Amino acid sequence: MREVAVLGVGMTKFGKTEKTSVEIFAEAAVDAVRESGVRRGDIQALFLGNVLGDFEEGQMNMAAFCAAEVGLGSVPATRFEGACASATLALISAYVWVASGRYDVVLAGGTERATVMGTPLATRTFAMGQDSRYESSLGLTFPGVFGMMCHQYSHKYGVPLAKLKEQMAAVAVKNHDNGLMNPKAHLRRKITVETVLDPEKSPMVADPLQLYDCCPFSDGAAALVLACGDAARRLHGKPVWVAGVGQGSAGALYRQKDLTIVTAREEAARQAYRQAGLRPEDIDVCELHDCFTIAEIVATECLGFFPYGTGGDAAERGRTRIGGGVPVNPSGGLKSKGHPIGATGVAQAVEIAQQLRGECGERQVDGARTGMIDTLGGDLGTVCSVIFRS
Amino acid sequence: MREVAVLGVGMTKFGKTEKTSVEIFAEAAVDAVRESGVRRGDIQALFLGNVLGDFEEGQMNMAAFCAAEVGLGSVPATRFEGACASATLALISAYVWVASGRYDVVLAGGTERATVMGTPLATRTFAMGQDSRYESSLGLTFPGVFGMMCHQYSHKYGVPLAKLKEQMAAVAVKNHDNGLMNPKAHLRRKITVETVLDPEKSPMVADPLQLYDCCPFSDGAAALVLACGDAARRLHGKPVWVAGVGQGSAGALYRQKDLTIVTAREEAARQAYRQAGLRPEDIDVCELHDCFTIAEIVATECLGFFPYGTGGDAAERGRTRIGGGVPVNPSGGLKSKGHPIGATGVAQAVEIAQQLRGECGERQVDGARTGMIDTLGGDLGTVCSVIFRS
Repeated sequence: MREVAVLGVGMTKFGKTEKTSVEIFAEAAVDAVRESGVRRGDIQALFLGNVLGDFEEGQMNMAAFCAAEVGLGSVPATRFEGACASATLALISAYVWVASGRYDVVLAGGTERATVMGTPLATRTFAMGQDSRYESSLGLTFPGVFGMMCHQYSHKYGVPLAKLKEQMAAVAVKNHDNGLMNPKAHLRRKITVETVLDPEKSPMVADPLQLYDCCPFSDGAAALVLACGDAARRLHGKPVWVAGVGQGSAGALYRQKDLTIVTAREEAARQAYRQAGLRPEDIDVCELHDCFTIAEIVATECLGFFPYGTGGDAAERGRTRIGGGVPVNPSGGLKSKGHPIGATGVAQAVEIAQQLRGECGERQVDGARTGMIDTLGGDLGTVCSVIFRS
Repeated sequence: MREVAVLGVGMTKFGKTEKTSVEIFAEAAVDAVRESGVRRGDIQALFLGNVLGDFEEGQMNMAAFCAAEVGLGSVPATRFEGACASATLALISAYVWVASGRYDVVLAGGTERATVMGTPLATRTFAMGQDSRYESSLGLTFPGVFGMMCHQYSHKYGVPLAKLKEQMAAVAVKNHDNGLMNPKAHLRRKITVETVLDPEKSPMVADPLQLYDCCPFSDGAAALVLACGDAARRLHGKPVWVAGVGQGSAGALYRQKDLTIVTAREEAARQAYRQAGLRPEDIDVCELHDCFTIAEIVATECLGFFPYGTGGDAAERGRTRIGGGVPVNPSGGLKSKGHPIGATGVAQAVEIAQQLRGECGERQVDGARTGMIDTLGGDLGTVCSVIFRS
């Protein structure tokens, strides 16, 4: 397998848009191509994440339309769907096609308009990422899944729920602080632990998760150009290398023994660390899937940054802040940067690429040379890990 | 890139089922694994095509649930969507992951319950495979697209519409004759040219396409085990080799100059022929995308079997029958075998694998040593080609 690098990256401002998913993808993609130094005609394929395009806009087969909008001619264009992990599936596949020698230069990305329906309908619709036979059909939605995760975490590790809620609030506050430094973030608003816990400002969504424990649905798109080593060294002053990729899966919740230890993530991270030849303590910066505050705590443990049961405490003690031991979600994460479902994974990669190039301004993690993304889809059913190095 | 072979294949009977897409996929997959000689624990990833799972059954992230149902543990499971070409996207990706050396043994397949909604609603829903900004939003559906293709074909090549309709009817009759020899086909019914043209038995759908010019929506699943050359030679007496793969895309119809020459197919076939080192005249048997009878005629031309403008005449003269010069759709094709949208491409590959192993009984193409599949998705937006050899 050959070396593969990220050259250009592009991302729209996350939030609400009146444009279509195809149009916003083209904006992100054109930025990525321009920055990469490759000519548009050199791009040999498009790998695209998208989740709700059919429900939001009546648009299936999204990849072909995106390729045409970007002006890529008749190159292969493929849509990937693995709920929230969709864009990272696209990214990993793009990596393998280049690493294998099949292609030299490709475009990977994701696009989503997740605000069209409004949050209540989008939440019910997106529950289709759960098992339809036994779970979503009974009324379970994702806030419910992650609410249960909180209770299990509290019970299993003996962290009183009130304490856990403070730890979770620290995650929200940190990610909002980071998002304030990211001009492309969706929710740029200073909050405090009190804001998160205030039942007026932050109403209960799914016990014990309150509004500020939950990321927003966002519209947005992200794209990056991947190239083989030779092309990367020729074209770009600061290639960011893909060091390892991993992917795991799991079935319905009833097949999973423990919501606090995500087996699909263990599998994904194991693969990525092994390929990269790195350990958790080698990771300088991480963008991970904080769809709910508890999700960030659980992810920091499962990725190996902190022992199981201690991720909440680490968050509260500032270990995951920029300048802390393991900076997590300097972009603001899903919580503040926003969560355009099928674009999120590549948006994480955009942040890591910019961090490893030292281009993140006031949210820059000093001296970051290795970075990791973690993207979780469905009811813990699909998890992807990618490790990058400068 | 390493050699890759198809080992086991599996396919449900196409038609209507009360089971879920996940359940029928498991049936096909378990058959494929059993036939392959590999142990289930040796399978390293699942690549799955599915299109309407969310609309039909409220099921997204389908691949993870399918992997669990088959008992694959936490292996990566990825869903591909490119309208009707979805399963072939999964197959091509599976091929590249094995050819690259990343995996040795994987499962590729597709599953769909396309009859749940009934044909009128499914037709309107599936129009989302067209451009939602300018085409499906104006009321265009796929019968309309292929109806226009007929008119353009007739006008461009000077084939009177009445003559073209007879040629198209010959395609339907041939595919129904073939399907009668396939126990897994959906529509097993002898028809004649008169049946197809009779406005009572075959009402007008989208001028000039009548009912018997159109394939049915079907429920069904198909799966195959792919393995690298070493494993294939060790495990299976009759490996069928992947000789070449190709994929092309195109944007909305308004970006396409000529419906009778599918540019995405030209691209896909060019890639596949080049990789295989074969020409159209080297192909012994072909399963191609006869969603409508005109689609088969146009495909036989675009794949290079007949000169442009002569595919209808060739069909009428029996050239595409079993025993003709270029046997096309010996399985019965989409027209008779049926069209479970997201499973169709792998079902085509199942037929070709069985043909190249000489296992097709009365519909066997004598001496077939090379075979090709062609799968078309959306408004000619995604086309895949795969060439196999024994």
